Amino acid sequence: MARPTPLSGFPEWLPADRAIEQAVLDTLRRVFELHGFAGIETRAVEPLDRMVAQGETDKEIYVLRRLHAGDTADDSGLGLHFDLTVPLARYVLENASRLAFPFRRYQIQKAWRGERPQEGRYREFTQADIDVIGDGTLAFHHEVELPLVVAEALSALPIPPVRIRVNNRKIAEGFYRGLGLDDVTAVLRTVDKLDKIGPDGVRQLLVASTGATPAQAEACLSLAALRGSDGSVADAVRALGVREPMLEEGLAELVRVLEAAAEHAPGLLLADLSVARGLDYYTGTVYETHLVGLEEVGSICSGGRYDELARDGERVYPGVGVSVGVSRLMGAIVGRRLAEATRPVPTCVLVAVPAEADRVGCDRVAAALRRRGIPTEVAPSAAKYGKQIRHAERRGIPFVWFPETPDGGHQVKDIRSGEQSAADPTTWRPPDDDRLVRVRPTTIEEQ
Amino acid sequence: MARPTPLSGFPEWLPADRAIEQAVLDTLRRVFELHGFAGIETRAVEPLDRMVAQGETDKEIYVLRRLHAGDTADDSGLGLHFDLTVPLARYVLENASRLAFPFRRYQIQKAWRGERPQEGRYREFTQADIDVIGDGTLAFHHEVELPLVVAEALSALPIPPVRIRVNNRKIAEGFYRGLGLDDVTAVLRTVDKLDKIGPDGVRQLLVASTGATPAQAEACLSLAALRGSDGSVADAVRALGVREPMLEEGLAELVRVLEAAAEHAPGLLLADLSVARGLDYYTGTVYETHLVGLEEVGSICSGGRYDELARDGERVYPGVGVSVGVSRLMGAIVGRRLAEATRPVPTCVLVAVPAEADRVGCDRVAAALRRRGIPTEVAPSAAKYGKQIRHAERRGIPFVWFPETPDGGHQVKDIRSGEQSAADPTTWRPPDDDRLVRVRPTTIEEQ
Repeated sequence: MARPTPLSGFPEWLPADRAIEQAVLDTLRRVFELHGFAGIETRAVEPLDRMVAQGETDKEIYVLRRLHAGDTADDSGLGLHFDLTVPLARYVLENASRLAFPFRRYQIQKAWRGERPQEGRYREFTQADIDVIGDGTLAFHHEVELPLVVAEALSALPIPPVRIRVNNRKIAEGFYRGLGLDDVTAVLRTVDKLDKIGPDGVRQLLVASTGATPAQAEACLSLAALRGSDGSVADAVRALGVREPMLEEGLAELVRVLEAAAEHAPGLLLADLSVARGLDYYTGTVYETHLVGLEEVGSICSGGRYDELARDGERVYPGVGVSVGVSRLMGAIVGRRLAEATRPVPTCVLVAVPAEADRVGCDRVAAALRRRGIPTEVAPSAAKYGKQIRHAERRGIPFVWFPETPDGGHQVKDIRSGEQSAADPTTWRPPDDDRLVRVRPTTIEEQ
Repeated sequence: MARPTPLSGFPEWLPADRAIEQAVLDTLRRVFELHGFAGIETRAVEPLDRMVAQGETDKEIYVLRRLHAGDTADDSGLGLHFDLTVPLARYVLENASRLAFPFRRYQIQKAWRGERPQEGRYREFTQADIDVIGDGTLAFHHEVELPLVVAEALSALPIPPVRIRVNNRKIAEGFYRGLGLDDVTAVLRTVDKLDKIGPDGVRQLLVASTGATPAQAEACLSLAALRGSDGSVADAVRALGVREPMLEEGLAELVRVLEAAAEHAPGLLLADLSVARGLDYYTGTVYETHLVGLEEVGSICSGGRYDELARDGERVYPGVGVSVGVSRLMGAIVGRRLAEATRPVPTCVLVAVPAEADRVGCDRVAAALRRRGIPTEVAPSAAKYGKQIRHAERRGIPFVWFPETPDGGHQVKDIRSGEQSAADPTTWRPPDDDRLVRVRPTTIEEQ
């Protein structure tokens, strides 16, 4: 069989880069748990009808069929989930009576979309989501809380600082209605194309497809052009002259989010009135996040408030959630060498084997080291010591252990410095920085 | 939309049980890394032609197609992997020049099979695999090493002790050839049915379908009936009177595995000459693992030696690997309540909110606790304290924090004991056992 080649859109990492990804995932999980989010996993598949009901993404779904049973099997009509929100909604409905609300969950899993692959956009990708789901109601303060949780998590990663751009759907909706534009969804979707087609394109499209007058289109563009990091941004919106109750509610909420962020994480949040987020179900605060200085990577973390994540008869579940695009982040980290692992293997010590007959003794040395949490492996063959040291070098293992021989006790060698000294397998410890693999940000020069 | 119901064969856990699974996965990973295995992940999909070439399981594969593009898309011809060995073989071929051999890797991921679901057999399941892959050759001692690594990992889990049943393909093959039975694969597959159809069924089938004489069939059954935990089992095989070089090689290897296990983990390994393992590619030691006293759960960990994991022209990659069936283990743990999490949420402290106006101060208390690694959340609403305490109870949170009020300092209450005392958010620590969720085995009475 021919040598395989990578599949476009399905990223895989070599062990050293996987160590970076693992560190990223561990950090996200640690911070999410510190904030009281419980981890869940959902199955990879959802019924197609549930996913298609979400609209927009239906053409990107991977549908499953069994190779032989085909579409008549009892597991037909299933597709791979394209995000973790549809599965969350289903999980909440299925388990509502066994969950305590507000339900705080994180979920770190792969999702799949049959999109054309491009930088930062994959067919298989890992998402790390946190959501707070209420039963009937959900207090606004969670819209303040969530960006601060992700910001804390992202700031612990080996990446540049982030900026979270925030907006509120009520502002756009109230503003458009106040202007007299009633097809809010159509206007939102058109304004959301700003990055792609520019202000002139949006202006023309608003007039052509939503029935806006040139003056109304101009007002929409003026709103989308506003930025700010404190209450003055609300004044700037009001200065555009539109008055509407929902608009006022949205502005008040936006200011509360900005003020809380100013206390806990100054400089983190920027109000950006052009942020719309594609999905229709957002109803309050919305978020997008960029790496400062690497904006071209795209949003690495987004989400928002939705008043109806799920509904079961009369019972409605509102929520607020954000999703970290781990694969997109990893693409940036690996592609730009923003971080590196101190070694590609977990092993700290290679125990050299003097002769095959000594292997049992070498295994005992390794076991003694492991008992104190030192990752250790035993050399694969009793080759000449020079060759065993080169094996350690090739694998990136920092220490080689020479076990007790007839002519003396144990010795351990740091093969980076060449330093060698006597050591006891029941007490020796490597320097703290060497025991486990660490991931560190690279310097500008190294990138 | 109707309330969703679980999908048969796609297990999902509530947060408390997911905490158990997470602890299981963390433990496996920790032990694998202690032994110098590097973690990798491979994409969920493989080309169908590569998977079908493995035979036997082709009818169980889930094939992907895009909902709209269908089978003409550039990503057609892909299926979900049904194990982690086919992906490993492909990964090794694809990255051979960038890996150091022997390549030691662990991989913890989901796999999918369109099988009829039953207890311990799922359509979506998590496997935790370790393999050592050589380039050209791979020393026998890795066949001794791997069962000891998994045994160490399994012994750290909240499950009953395990017994690893071990055999060697060379014994069966040499024995059958020595008897004059040349269709070794057919005989192996027939003897592998012992559990299902019993000795009489196997005897008849051997005669009917492999051309064995009744005496040859009887000899095969005598071999399969042998058990032992030391060198005497080899003598018992020899006493059956068959002499053949490959048989002798297999017996020597089996004894070496047993002797090493007797030193490092007495009572762990049992030679069982009936163990065959379904897949044809095993060529040396093979393993199966059962929970002592819960044998009906089936094998929770199996694998073996294969001389040709992958081939690239003249270059051959032999390997030895074992695979822990995490989902099957979890089915047993949850179904039989073998273990439980101390709480269903990571949260150790709920900070009560006296009034909504005090929320910013409560957030500060929570941040101070989190800075010292104490998982903390702030109450969702400024309800009466009794209601906030009940909220903590419902979520399983052990401590409620009452922040500074005009009439006094901070207080913290252990809501299990009712004990309440003054506390400082910058210095207070919960008991060590309470800070993080722990998973503990249940007692017989609790199960």
